[in-house]
Amino acid sequence: MEGARSPRIGVIGGGQLARMMIPAAIELDLDLHVLATTPDESAARVSTHVMLGRHDDPEAVTAFARSVDVVTFDHEHVPTGLLHALEHEGVVVRPGPNALVYAQDKLAMRARLSELGHPCPRWWRVETEADLETALRESGGDLILKTARGGYDGHGVMRVEALEDAREWLERGQPLLAEERVPFVRELSAQVARRPGGEIATYPVTESEQKDGVCFRVSAPAPNLAPEVAEQARALAANIASDLEVVGMLAVELFEYPDGRIAVNELAMRPHNTGHWSMDGCVTSQFEQHLRAVADLPLGDTTPTAAWTVMVNTLGSTRENLAEGAREALASDPGIKLHLYGKSVRAGRKLGHVTALGSDLEETERRARAAAHTIVTGDESKE
Amino acid sequence: MEGARSPRIGVIGGGQLARMMIPAAIELDLDLHVLATTPDESAARVSTHVMLGRHDDPEAVTAFARSVDVVTFDHEHVPTGLLHALEHEGVVVRPGPNALVYAQDKLAMRARLSELGHPCPRWWRVETEADLETALRESGGDLILKTARGGYDGHGVMRVEALEDAREWLERGQPLLAEERVPFVRELSAQVARRPGGEIATYPVTESEQKDGVCFRVSAPAPNLAPEVAEQARALAANIASDLEVVGMLAVELFEYPDGRIAVNELAMRPHNTGHWSMDGCVTSQFEQHLRAVADLPLGDTTPTAAWTVMVNTLGSTRENLAEGAREALASDPGIKLHLYGKSVRAGRKLGHVTALGSDLEETERRARAAAHTIVTGDESKE
Repeated sequence: MEGARSPRIGVIGGGQLARMMIPAAIELDLDLHVLATTPDESAARVSTHVMLGRHDDPEAVTAFARSVDVVTFDHEHVPTGLLHALEHEGVVVRPGPNALVYAQDKLAMRARLSELGHPCPRWWRVETEADLETALRESGGDLILKTARGGYDGHGVMRVEALEDAREWLERGQPLLAEERVPFVRELSAQVARRPGGEIATYPVTESEQKDGVCFRVSAPAPNLAPEVAEQARALAANIASDLEVVGMLAVELFEYPDGRIAVNELAMRPHNTGHWSMDGCVTSQFEQHLRAVADLPLGDTTPTAAWTVMVNTLGSTRENLAEGAREALASDPGIKLHLYGKSVRAGRKLGHVTALGSDLEETERRARAAAHTIVTGDESKE
Repeated sequence: MEGARSPRIGVIGGGQLARMMIPAAIELDLDLHVLATTPDESAARVSTHVMLGRHDDPEAVTAFARSVDVVTFDHEHVPTGLLHALEHEGVVVRPGPNALVYAQDKLAMRARLSELGHPCPRWWRVETEADLETALRESGGDLILKTARGGYDGHGVMRVEALEDAREWLERGQPLLAEERVPFVRELSAQVARRPGGEIATYPVTESEQKDGVCFRVSAPAPNLAPEVAEQARALAANIASDLEVVGMLAVELFEYPDGRIAVNELAMRPHNTGHWSMDGCVTSQFEQHLRAVADLPLGDTTPTAAWTVMVNTLGSTRENLAEGAREALASDPGIKLHLYGKSVRAGRKLGHVTALGSDLEETERRARAAAHTIVTGDESKE
């Protein structure tokens, strides 16, 4: 891997996160390869080096890993055991399975973070009805129950107030994570990049708004965030990255409590939706930064380029495709930045995002929302 | 070409300009195709739709043009007659040959701009010794002689003080353009984008510094430029784009005279080296803008994102490739933006560029020069 030439970087997964790494790879002349399930996946459509295969097929993943110098990820669904096997045969995996497991397995994450003393909501490991009864009693009868593995974008999350709410999940026999329902005032995200040698770069903390469990709007930096809390969140993200020896981008999703305390919600070890704003609003985008970290290149400056950046996802559409809505959005706001993922339209699907930069937060947010609305609905009347 | 779907855009030429269109095409989900001479050309290496063929081979160009919805360019060397033939059979060519000829043929350009009343240096059409004698006499014996077609980066340009200096060129029997030697204080560039319907977006005027006839450093906006001259340059570029019915990006290279007057040096109808700064320093980069114009999408905001942006080319290298120098440059300056073209090293060759953004011009220029120097020479001592 060392030497003058850049390493061949293999991304497992062909979604929009892998896709958005490609422009950064082109500019830095990095050799990016993608393992995609089908040739029409978001990244596969624009990658010059695509191998087809499933992320959970040991044969496909192994063949792909052997064709590159370092493996990284579009998502966290590659089986941990498979990654250990790859490492065992000498494949460089970044982040490695010993770190990635804390983004794959929410129970492992809670146990490890608690052990390290990082702030978490109260939580319980639930495998039996008795476990859940204990958790319900201790929490005051209001829990969030999560599958330990495999959840994303609101999937694998359930509110539980009584045993019967969770009976179906319990019968599956998979370990579950129960958490107190946090009376959070908002969700924050603290992103950080870490290089193999330990170099760290933290990003400004952002505020994110979810719609039906899916990220919808992100404002950077998080408005009205007390400077000491922002500092604490950045330090927390840096500490977690170091403690877990993450390589690449780490997103620490946070709850902000009414009293200003923060606690970790989830971890993602890859570029994250809460960091898309950095493509337009930061000196170094999270996609470039992820590649720099994974290729063991020096990390880049994370200073914002505008006072405010607001990103809004385009989720689903009432139209056959986004081209016409995109044209309308570009026409109504020449300053809007548009990112389309080349995916076919499906209700609620993340098809792209828009970013607005500005000196006035309200106006910037209004512009980003209006553009996303126009793209999705084609309706000229703004939200 | 009309309708909801984006057009397939075909770029003739596989150089770095075509390459840098690709990230913009990915983000806007535009379908970009490249006609390259060899598979290892800069754009061919990162394009998912490459056809191989020469830009001056009618068969190759015609086959390529028929495979896309609209044709545009990485350079201006496609024979004008071939483009007329394509238009004749219904191919959409942007910019069209009636505009492009003024970027291809310097005599045609001088004649047309003079006819339109746009400021030019004094010039003479030279086909015979007698023509050159007249020009020498009228100019006071100090001329710049240019081949009408085919020149670039200092090639096809010669200083002439006596008939014998030019004998070899005259014997070739090709028409030549003679121009007075302009006592310019610096070179400026005014870029503009124009859509088919006539929509126009002008960019801030930049200052460029050449090294041996090749663009080396560009500062944006041009420092110490009188606001009325900047305004005049932008209006001039917009007028030329309209007069010539350019579609896509137009760069109007300008001389600035000691008294503040400006005159047109050359025209380029494509993204241009003097606009690379816009990739990092502008809301809408020239590459995105060119594609928006060519695809007939609304044009984007051209506001700079920093007080100063300085771009420096990495020309040649004493190393086998740029990877190690790039690593050193990124390590010494986390804020530097690096763009590598994936080309093999050759003396003086444009291999990439770096951009620095900042609030202090001198510091910004120093950073950009230092990074380019480090990449090229690997010498840690800064210029």
